[in-house]
Amino acid sequence: MLASQQVRQNIRQGIFTQPTAGAAPGFVQANLVVLPKSLAADFMLFCQRNPKPCPLLSISDPGSTFFPGYGDDLDIRTDIPRYRVWRNGELIDEVSNVTTYWRDDLISFAIGCSFSFEEALVAEGLDVRHISCASNVPMYRSNISTQSAGPFHGPLVVSMRPFKPADAIRAIQLTSKFPSVHGAPVHIGDASQIGISDLSKPDFGEPVEVRAGELPVFWACGVTPQAVLMASKPEFCITHAPGYMLVTDKLNAHLAII
Amino acid sequence: MLASQQVRQNIRQGIFTQPTAGAAPGFVQANLVVLPKSLAADFMLFCQRNPKPCPLLSISDPGSTFFPGYGDDLDIRTDIPRYRVWRNGELIDEVSNVTTYWRDDLISFAIGCSFSFEEALVAEGLDVRHISCASNVPMYRSNISTQSAGPFHGPLVVSMRPFKPADAIRAIQLTSKFPSVHGAPVHIGDASQIGISDLSKPDFGEPVEVRAGELPVFWACGVTPQAVLMASKPEFCITHAPGYMLVTDKLNAHLAII
Repeated sequence: MLASQQVRQNIRQGIFTQPTAGAAPGFVQANLVVLPKSLAADFMLFCQRNPKPCPLLSISDPGSTFFPGYGDDLDIRTDIPRYRVWRNGELIDEVSNVTTYWRDDLISFAIGCSFSFEEALVAEGLDVRHISCASNVPMYRSNISTQSAGPFHGPLVVSMRPFKPADAIRAIQLTSKFPSVHGAPVHIGDASQIGISDLSKPDFGEPVEVRAGELPVFWACGVTPQAVLMASKPEFCITHAPGYMLVTDKLNAHLAII
Repeated sequence: MLASQQVRQNIRQGIFTQPTAGAAPGFVQANLVVLPKSLAADFMLFCQRNPKPCPLLSISDPGSTFFPGYGDDLDIRTDIPRYRVWRNGELIDEVSNVTTYWRDDLISFAIGCSFSFEEALVAEGLDVRHISCASNVPMYRSNISTQSAGPFHGPLVVSMRPFKPADAIRAIQLTSKFPSVHGAPVHIGDASQIGISDLSKPDFGEPVEVRAGELPVFWACGVTPQAVLMASKPEFCITHAPGYMLVTDKLNAHLAII
């Protein structure tokens, strides 16, 4: 049994209930968004227009509970430790499975997650600060607009990782190989240029220290689609809870384009 | 006849006497170093140990006047518009051909030049400042040491090009494809971290403006081997004069590794 299958089985049985960072190393973890078919076309368009924050790994058939090629036994309704259920933009429930909320008109989106490229950075010996500090990555609403589609619009949310300049160059090279999990950074250096006034006060996650001689490096972040989605107040929506991702059978290494 | 062959023929006939920037677009231009065989092994070792400033494109056989694969009619002695001849580290002559200086024990080195990757940056729509300002690229002695070999040692010389952050990220991606012409930058941002106190006072070339919101980006520079060579005062040496490069029949596009 693959490590990813084991993790999903443990999640399904209620044995694994924690955030999924570090679970099943080497396997792709994904952001989940589930929407009624009536909203899915606009959301698909939004993702297509904003591939850096919203890299689409897979889209389910309507009502289907799995992502073809991402795990034969994968069940979208039960295989994430913590889901969030939303109505009209309000969080109405946080649950360990969404079987009772399931509808035949739901379409699910698996969106790439930075865990995949962070694994490549760590493997290269780079100090990924929030990992070495065991905290959440700091994320910020930038002043960069996404391209809107239907009701979906809003600012690009970026994640920040500080590096020494030579490591920043290496991080740019490495993440360029992974366009389906946010790819290369969108900004480097002066945070105020993208509308961030105080790095010590992230909008999501926790702050990390930017040490003397380091440059903050900013990547498009998978929180963008969730923030945009909530702001548009869809009548119904299911997402993963932050940090509780969908563990798939796809290998991170297979996402590398070169 | 290839544009590169035409340029070399015009140089050989004394019709083309200017710097070679912009001549035969698309074709690789190279730095030239010619040394007696007695010094060539150490210099080869120096280049092998310092591939970013000294990317070896080709090494001639002793006494040979061409680089295999870089132009069938290419003659190392006549095909550069301006050569420099050195004895014991002193410049003794600047000439349009070195036929009278030629010796059977000379070994020639063709070393990659940033013209190749600059062409790729310009093709991508990036503003390469010293090109848009029609000046020479600014170059600086850094506090980064090269790896020594025999008598050859000294600091890494870097060239600097300023870019807006997003363009800097793109420039890192593009130049990473060209390891045989210096490849990815060695530094980005704070110049003082690599021992450069004043960007407006380059050690070679001319200063360029770093505009508000731009980051200086630093690449290992082909002036490094020449500076190192001159400091070691070899008994005899021929080089190209700065800006007067060897135009070859190799395509820049063929240097891209991906």
